[in-house]
Amino acid sequence: MERITSIPSAERAMERLDLLARVGSDGQNGGITRPGLSVLEDEAHALVAAWCEEDGMAVSRDSAGNLYARPAGAPAAGEVWSGSHVDTVPSGGRFDGALGVVAAIEAVAAVADDAPGAPLAVVVFRDEEGWRFGEGCFGSRTVAGQVGPVGLARTDAAGVTIEAALAALGLPGPPVDVTLPAAYVEVHIEQGPALDTAGFALADVTAIAGMAGFNVTFRGASGHAGTVPMADRSDAFAACADLAVRLRERALEVPGAVATIGDVAIAQPAANVIPGVVRATVDVRAPSAAALDLLVAAVPAVAAEVATRNRCGVDAVRAWRSEPVSLSPRVRAAVRSAAGSAGVPVAEMASGAGHDAGILAAAGVDAGMLFVRSLNGGVSHRPDELSSEADIAAAIAVLTGTLRSLL
Amino acid sequence: MERITSIPSAERAMERLDLLARVGSDGQNGGITRPGLSVLEDEAHALVAAWCEEDGMAVSRDSAGNLYARPAGAPAAGEVWSGSHVDTVPSGGRFDGALGVVAAIEAVAAVADDAPGAPLAVVVFRDEEGWRFGEGCFGSRTVAGQVGPVGLARTDAAGVTIEAALAALGLPGPPVDVTLPAAYVEVHIEQGPALDTAGFALADVTAIAGMAGFNVTFRGASGHAGTVPMADRSDAFAACADLAVRLRERALEVPGAVATIGDVAIAQPAANVIPGVVRATVDVRAPSAAALDLLVAAVPAVAAEVATRNRCGVDAVRAWRSEPVSLSPRVRAAVRSAAGSAGVPVAEMASGAGHDAGILAAAGVDAGMLFVRSLNGGVSHRPDELSSEADIAAAIAVLTGTLRSLL
Repeated sequence: MERITSIPSAERAMERLDLLARVGSDGQNGGITRPGLSVLEDEAHALVAAWCEEDGMAVSRDSAGNLYARPAGAPAAGEVWSGSHVDTVPSGGRFDGALGVVAAIEAVAAVADDAPGAPLAVVVFRDEEGWRFGEGCFGSRTVAGQVGPVGLARTDAAGVTIEAALAALGLPGPPVDVTLPAAYVEVHIEQGPALDTAGFALADVTAIAGMAGFNVTFRGASGHAGTVPMADRSDAFAACADLAVRLRERALEVPGAVATIGDVAIAQPAANVIPGVVRATVDVRAPSAAALDLLVAAVPAVAAEVATRNRCGVDAVRAWRSEPVSLSPRVRAAVRSAAGSAGVPVAEMASGAGHDAGILAAAGVDAGMLFVRSLNGGVSHRPDELSSEADIAAAIAVLTGTLRSLL
Repeated sequence: MERITSIPSAERAMERLDLLARVGSDGQNGGITRPGLSVLEDEAHALVAAWCEEDGMAVSRDSAGNLYARPAGAPAAGEVWSGSHVDTVPSGGRFDGALGVVAAIEAVAAVADDAPGAPLAVVVFRDEEGWRFGEGCFGSRTVAGQVGPVGLARTDAAGVTIEAALAALGLPGPPVDVTLPAAYVEVHIEQGPALDTAGFALADVTAIAGMAGFNVTFRGASGHAGTVPMADRSDAFAACADLAVRLRERALEVPGAVATIGDVAIAQPAANVIPGVVRATVDVRAPSAAALDLLVAAVPAVAAEVATRNRCGVDAVRAWRSEPVSLSPRVRAAVRSAAGSAGVPVAEMASGAGHDAGILAAAGVDAGMLFVRSLNGGVSHRPDELSSEADIAAAIAVLTGTLRSLL
C-alpha cells in the first residue's frame, strides 16, 4: 500500500460514513433503516449535497430525486459519473451504497483539482435496494428511461404509491430529462466472502448476475390442528416448506446460482390452525442467461408440483427479471491500469447482487465497478457489515486513477 | 329421527347460533373473531345470560368470568353441568363452542321443567381457544384451580397480560371459589371428517388426545440474497422448512398423531435478504401418552438436527403439554343409554382437539362429550364450518336424556 497517497481522503470518507450512519439509525443494535424515497433518504442526500458543495461542486437533482454534483466549470455532456446510493435495507449497515458515494466525492474532487473543467459528476441514485416498493434500482432505472406509469403505481406495505412518495418529497417523478454519461464507475462493497477468502482488497467486476423475483401464493384449507389427519391435509405452509427444500436442491445443481425465500406470510396464523393461505417471495440469481432460464422455469414448475403433493392451489407470479449484463471492457481496462499504477492487486469476479451500474450498462453506458473486500465473513445487509479503512483508501486511489484515464 | 321430539328446541338453538354469530362478525366473509377475555366474548356471555334468564334460570359469574345459569331452586352442590365456550379462533365459525352452550340451555331447561329443583347448571367457560394468550381452556383451568400467577402474567401479541384483560372486564381473576360438579357433559362439533365419512350424526367421545406446543427459534445469519453461495448460508428459514418436512414424516409414522406448524415469523423479512432469525410454533398431538412422548422428544431432536445441517443455532422450548385423558365411563354409559332411548346411533371416537371437558376430567370430574357431525369435509376453525339442524336436534335430545339419567 506504500504507493497510495490518499489516506487523508479515506479518513474523511470513513468519518462521513459514520455521519451518514446516524440518519435512520435503529439505535442500540447499530443497524440503519433508510427506506428509498423516504424523508430519511432525503436527509442523507442533503448531507451528501452539503459535502459536495464544501468541495466547490454545483449540486442539482432531477425530477426523480437523483443527485448530481459537478465540479465548478464542468460541462454537462460527455461526462464520467461516479456514485452509488444512500438508501438501505431494513437494519442494514453503513457501507452498502454509502461507500460508493463518499468514495466518488473524494475521487471526483481529486481529479477536478488536477483537471479543472473536466466533465465529471458525483451521482446518488434513489431507492436502489427496492424492498420498499418491490423492485430495485429505481433511480438508475428512471435515468435509463425505464420507469413508466405502471412502475410509479407500485405500492409499499402501507399502500403508498411511488408517485405519492415522490410527491411527498416535492418531486414530480419521471420522465427524467437527463443525458446519459459517457462512462460510469461505481465503488461498492462486495457483500460476500470471496475477496476476503482469496486475499484481495479489491475486485474488477466482470458482470452483474441475472436475477428474477417471484411472488408465490399457496391456497390450501385451514383447519383445526388436532382434528384433520396428516394424510387429509391441504397445508399451505407444508407446501411452502417443500418449495424451499426443492428450490435449494435445484439451485445447488446450477453452478453459481442461488435461490432465496426471504419473506413468508401465513394468512391469519395461529399455533392450533393448519395454515390455509401462505405467501412467499422467491429470489433466484445465476451468472448466465441460460442458467437463469433454468431457475426461472423451475420456480413455477416446482411450486405446482409441491402444491399438488400438498393438495393446494398455487399462483407463482414472476414480479421482475433482470438479465445478466457484462460490464464495459473500456472501464475494466481503466480500472486494471489504475490499480497497476497504484500497486494494488485486483481480483476479477461477477456480482451476484444487482447494482445501478448494471442498469446503466444495459442502457448502453460504459459502466464498471470496483468491489471492496467485505470482512466479518462477507456479511451484508446487516449492521455488522465491515470494510477496512486501508481497503477503502485503496479503492479511492484506484477510482481516482480510473476516472482520470476515462476523461 | 322420528322419535326426536325436540325439533322446536333445535330451531331455537339454531336461531341463537345466528344471533351469536353477529358478535365479532368479520363482515363479508362470514367469519367470527371473538378473542378470549375480550369485550366481544363478554358481549356473547351477556346474550347467553339473557337467554338463560328468559328460561327462569339464575345467572352468576365467578371471579374469572365463567358463567353459571341454574334453574330456579336448584341447589349448588352435587351438580350436573353442561356447557362449552363462546370465544372463537380468528375468523372462526358459528358452531365451535357456541353449539355446546345453546344445546345445554335447551337440555337443562327441558330437564328442569320435568324435575324442578334438580341440581343442574349451564356453564360457559372463558377463552377456550387459547390463541390470544398461547394456552387453551383458560376458564376450565381456573375452575380446576390450575391457573396461578405465572398463567396470569401471560401476554397477548399487544403485550396485554391475562390479569390486565380480566381487570378490563371488571374481573378480579383466579383464585375461583367454585365447587367442582359431580358430572359434566359437553356437546361440541367434531371439527373433522370422521363422522360424516362413517355416516353418524353423533359420537360418544372416549378420550381427549394428548398434545403439546413448542416455540422454536432458529438463529442463522442474514445476508444478501445474491452474494452468499448456497453452500455457505446459515438460512434460518431453510432450517424451518426442513423442520416442517421432517416433522410431517415423523407424525406420519405414529398412528393417529398430527404435527402442525401454524405460525411462522421471519425477523425483518425482505425478498432479497437471507432470513437470519425465524420463529415458529409446533403443535403435536397423539392418542396415547407413549405416542405423545415420541413426538415431544422428536421436536427438539429434529430441530437440532436441521439447525446443524443449516449452520444455525436453535431453541426449541416446550410451551405446554396436556396429557391424554379418558372420559368418564359413567357419563359415557349415560350418553349411550340416552342415545338408545332416542333411537340415535352413536359412533365412538377420541378427540384430537382439546376441550374443557378434558380439563374437568383430569381434575376428577365425571366428564363426557357428545360430538356432532361436521359437514363440508369436516372443516373447522373456519367460517364455513357446518352442522345440520337435524343433527343438532339429535344432540339436544341425547344430551337431555343424558342429564336426566345423571341426576
